[in-house]
Amino acid sequence: MLQPVMHVLKQRNIILASGSPRRKELIENIGLAVGLCPSLFEENLDPKKFKNFIEFVEETALQKVLEVDNRLRLQGDPPDVVIGADTMVTLDGSLFGKPTSEQEAFDMLKSLSGRSHTVYTGVVVKTKDKTVKFTEKTNVIFGKLEDEQIRGYIATGEPMDKAGGYGIQGIGGTFVERIEGDYFTVVGLPLYRLCAVLYDMFKDNK
Amino acid sequence: MLQPVMHVLKQRNIILASGSPRRKELIENIGLAVGLCPSLFEENLDPKKFKNFIEFVEETALQKVLEVDNRLRLQGDPPDVVIGADTMVTLDGSLFGKPTSEQEAFDMLKSLSGRSHTVYTGVVVKTKDKTVKFTEKTNVIFGKLEDEQIRGYIATGEPMDKAGGYGIQGIGGTFVERIEGDYFTVVGLPLYRLCAVLYDMFKDNK
Repeated sequence: MLQPVMHVLKQRNIILASGSPRRKELIENIGLAVGLCPSLFEENLDPKKFKNFIEFVEETALQKVLEVDNRLRLQGDPPDVVIGADTMVTLDGSLFGKPTSEQEAFDMLKSLSGRSHTVYTGVVVKTKDKTVKFTEKTNVIFGKLEDEQIRGYIATGEPMDKAGGYGIQGIGGTFVERIEGDYFTVVGLPLYRLCAVLYDMFKDNK
Repeated sequence: MLQPVMHVLKQRNIILASGSPRRKELIENIGLAVGLCPSLFEENLDPKKFKNFIEFVEETALQKVLEVDNRLRLQGDPPDVVIGADTMVTLDGSLFGKPTSEQEAFDMLKSLSGRSHTVYTGVVVKTKDKTVKFTEKTNVIFGKLEDEQIRGYIATGEPMDKAGGYGIQGIGGTFVERIEGDYFTVVGLPLYRLCAVLYDMFKDNK
């Protein structure tokens, strides 16, 4: 979708305020060259202080972006565009972070088994003049899992650094019967909407 | 999902009757070791001779599997499991193959713009004793595309070897606002259902 503005984007210093290799791979897959600068923002916002999940993920994404933007500016290397994202797995109004133990990973996956949950990814795109925020949500429907399938998955080590205890782009993808929404929202960066925002920002420069 | 039977599967000679690097990557991503043996079956079945798209993709997948299975048997290297798949993009009852010209790619993408179409992937899994067939379908909803976005995409060269004129796992993913179904059905191999079939086939050997 970005091809008509790609020559403009190629001249910009675009920074992804994330250390996630998955996000970097997604964005490079669509031909966009970005620098990676993991944010030092401590992700410590209290979800209970927000009206809803959308405001929470957008604020976390914004804080990541602002920290990176400030730091690079102070270092004398101001970016043209900073992109930040935050992904959250939710079930029945509760938030699932990264499991802190194998038992917690088991409990999370067991509770996702055979039903639908919702993944939110909030995104912030900041330029000198403008800051755009949006959130995409995707429903993920897991098949019914046997306990030993869950245990076997945990033994692969994949769940432990993933929100919700699974990675849809890895072995965890075999648990997912279907989704409703943007697949890339579940991986961690909603590509369609991100590209629509970048296209709108740069189409008048093309 | 396959972890409890993985030690059994690792001892089997599993062949993917496909030359698609995307299918191979998907299957390797979930930790399954497979040999790749592109089928020599000429994909020349006439869709009009089938009751529906499901029977058509399953028959094409079956013919791919049978050709590979026979050939390897004759070569004295009989496989334990042969997996074949066929993917088809459809809109309003018409079938979209790989575009044969840039103009055809443009017309296809233009007709997919701003609406929903359906991708079918038929899969056949054959062992010595048993042949299982199934088809998954996923709805893919494209955002509204400007003509120059379509032209820019065609200029990347990505559309020309893809059914429907786009690859969801590449730059084409930026056109896809949302999907309903298994994402991997659109890439070319429905992972959830394939793993469920393999698990059922081998769980009594574990």
